[in-house]
Amino acid sequence: MFGKMLENLREKAPLIHSITNPVTVNQCANMLLACGASPIMADDPMEAAQITGISNGLVLNMGTLSQRTIPSMMASGKQAGQLGLPIVLDPVGVAASDFRMKTARMFLEKLPLSVIRGNLSEIRALGEFSRGPAGVDSLVKLSHEPAGVDDLVKPSHEPAGVDALAADRITEENLPEILDFARDFSRRTNTVSVITGAIDLVTDGEQTYCIRNGHPLMRKVTGTGCQLSALTGAFVAANPGHILEAAAAAVTTMGLAGEIAFKRLGPGEGNMTYGNYIIDAVCHLTPEDLEKEGNYEIR
Amino acid sequence: MFGKMLENLREKAPLIHSITNPVTVNQCANMLLACGASPIMADDPMEAAQITGISNGLVLNMGTLSQRTIPSMMASGKQAGQLGLPIVLDPVGVAASDFRMKTARMFLEKLPLSVIRGNLSEIRALGEFSRGPAGVDSLVKLSHEPAGVDDLVKPSHEPAGVDALAADRITEENLPEILDFARDFSRRTNTVSVITGAIDLVTDGEQTYCIRNGHPLMRKVTGTGCQLSALTGAFVAANPGHILEAAAAAVTTMGLAGEIAFKRLGPGEGNMTYGNYIIDAVCHLTPEDLEKEGNYEIR
Amino acid sequence: MFGKMLENLREKAPLIHSITNPVTVNQCANMLLACGASPIMADDPMEAAQITGISNGLVLNMGTLSQRTIPSMMASGKQAGQLGLPIVLDPVGVAASDFRMKTARMFLEKLPLSVIRGNLSEIRALGEFSRGPAGVDSLVKLSHEPAGVDDLVKPSHEPAGVDALAADRITEENLPEILDFARDFSRRTNTVSVITGAIDLVTDGEQTYCIRNGHPLMRKVTGTGCQLSALTGAFVAANPGHILEAAAAAVTTMGLAGEIAFKRLGPGEGNMTYGNYIIDAVCHLTPEDLEKEGNYEIR
Repeated sequence: MFGKMLENLREKAPLIHSITNPVTVNQCANMLLACGASPIMADDPMEAAQITGISNGLVLNMGTLSQRTIPSMMASGKQAGQLGLPIVLDPVGVAASDFRMKTARMFLEKLPLSVIRGNLSEIRALGEFSRGPAGVDSLVKLSHEPAGVDDLVKPSHEPAGVDALAADRITEENLPEILDFARDFSRRTNTVSVITGAIDLVTDGEQTYCIRNGHPLMRKVTGTGCQLSALTGAFVAANPGHILEAAAAAVTTMGLAGEIAFKRLGPGEGNMTYGNYIIDAVCHLTPEDLEKEGNYEIR
Repeated sequence: MFGKMLENLREKAPLIHSITNPVTVNQCANMLLACGASPIMADDPMEAAQITGISNGLVLNMGTLSQRTIPSMMASGKQAGQLGLPIVLDPVGVAASDFRMKTARMFLEKLPLSVIRGNLSEIRALGEFSRGPAGVDSLVKLSHEPAGVDDLVKPSHEPAGVDALAADRITEENLPEILDFARDFSRRTNTVSVITGAIDLVTDGEQTYCIRNGHPLMRKVTGTGCQLSALTGAFVAANPGHILEAAAAAVTTMGLAGEIAFKRLGPGEGNMTYGNYIIDAVCHLTPEDLEKEGNYEIR
Repeated sequence: MFGKMLENLREKAPLIHSITNPVTVNQCANMLLACGASPIMADDPMEAAQITGISNGLVLNMGTLSQRTIPSMMASGKQAGQLGLPIVLDPVGVAASDFRMKTARMFLEKLPLSVIRGNLSEIRALGEFSRGPAGVDSLVKLSHEPAGVDDLVKPSHEPAGVDALAADRITEENLPEILDFARDFSRRTNTVSVITGAIDLVTDGEQTYCIRNGHPLMRKVTGTGCQLSALTGAFVAANPGHILEAAAAAVTTMGLAGEIAFKRLGPGEGNMTYGNYIIDAVCHLTPEDLEKEGNYEIR
């Protein structure tokens, strides 16, 4: 089934609109090209919604979140909602600041998200947010004003940065508990959630794919998470009506690419070359490879 | 002659000021270094014109166009005009939004552009724009206000994204017709136009170079068009008084680099590695290679 | 000693907050991962100080300086000061515009910088700035207003771009004079200064490391300076109380990586591949290599 989904992606070549961060935007664009999609990265409020209107799917990536692009993300998200296009949210480092947390909360409340992809620290932080009033109005107002430094200097979350905390590693031991959390999170947010780690989980609240592809060295390459979110946008856009399976196919594709790329590494080759090889691997991946080498179970 | 132009470029090492997008900015900088130029990427209105003032050429790239940098582009463009520096415009995805189209129109009306480089969809869209009042004043005003979402949700152009439409492929069959269009476009805009595709056209409205270098895989690498625009800026800056020939030399250089890079590709190497090899190839390209392997005719 | 410092870096894995430019941000993030640190690149005023608050060190990089992020840099710098975190300033192209010069001057006056890293043209320009009133208030005010073009069109510095001027090459002949300048600069600014060139100098005003690692081809890769600044942030964050030695260790690491990467280059491989190999080399560098291959003297 994953093989067929990759075929659909190559055949339909969906245009994926990404509003994302400058750190990994080049690799996200090349990942979209590698998998068979077309990238467009417009992020100005003057055109974001219109660009979404000509696209087949939308990816909102909160890395290096900027006040300049939040209105773009909202406008594009609403436009995607009106057109029935899938939206993938990547809440990069959401636990690292109030600004990211409030913005993510606003997206969850206001936008019809299809998929949320993050590491366990990110998804846990999102799952734990207060259910009280989000203060969305004040945030939108603030998003055009410079922040008062004093309001921002008190970290209110455990420091997490953009990586998962050690306590948030997914292992065979804590898997059942995390599965429960993930299912509950998906049901509450009405999304397919993708939690990536040593084991990757993809669930719609009912069925869950537990995927065991990938390689630990992927954590030494900046933006493999961002690239997976872009890839997920491409898979779900090309396979409408099958969001859960398409997201699982994207995760398996990324994991396999990490394995294939690792095997290619020669002496002296490190994280930068590895990152390039991962995209190369998606470029060459066949539907047959994906069917044969995908290592997952459905729970 | 192209060989001599590359020699001039390596000897003069022009400083090229690029105001461009975050997706491909790193590759553009490395392409400029590879060809022998020096890059500077300043894009803030506080310094853009001053940076242009110390540069030898200006490249305006509309990928991920931003209200923040349009005033920078205008200020730098005017400064370049006053100093007689060449300006290359890359109207990335200009058909994809009204915002890009209006901005491009403003640049065409207000700035003394030397070269416009795009794919056929982009140049056609520019060529078809209404000759009525451009509404420049309202655009400049708008460029400091958040856009009303409602004004932007209605796509008014055929969806094109940043790639050429299938109907806009350049073939031997439609070449004569496209040549006519390109010549007319150059005469009307008083620029050298560079239209890239399976065959690349470079014309000043009189003479036209039809260049048959390059490789289709280049389309799977994000930003090869942006890199060509940067390269064109470097060639024209180093060869004043020969804009047509210098632009044709740049296009031939890029095409040859795509061929050389393709030959280097080994098993498992995909679009990401290919992109790196293209820049590597420019780094090693000799004037002799360029003379010998350039495949073009003048019409 | 440098070897032990690299060990500390790998063991502590400091989180390094960088506010930097889109040209080289990806390579900076991957360099941080390669050396054993974790990157976070937040640059919005709404979260910058809070992100600094969860980090172990701060890197302020002025490449593609933007009015949008100057308030972020100031807020993060002040937060770092309050927490006693090391701050590395990279005054990229500071001689190229009044905007950069005024901003750098403001940082020097207002922030407790630990390290300033640049090429000789950049550090000389900083060293020569007028000691008169900096006009900081007007700059901060201006930072939320569009610049008047007319105020910016008169270049007031010798054109330098982001590369060192030919007159600013460091050679064995002019080394004593540059050593004097560097020591004086460090004493006046109360920082460790890192001046990179054919010979790299690292001084606290008393002791000076003269480091002779590196390779001239590094100048053909965009962002090797930016990467070194990021690396310096990581080394000093992991080795508190030893800023001079940690900065020297970072410079030696970068130089060695340039040498190792150069040896890996095969036929046809150019500046882009070289840039990737430099990061790969840091990924594989052992404390023993660093001890054994570091080529420096203390003056």
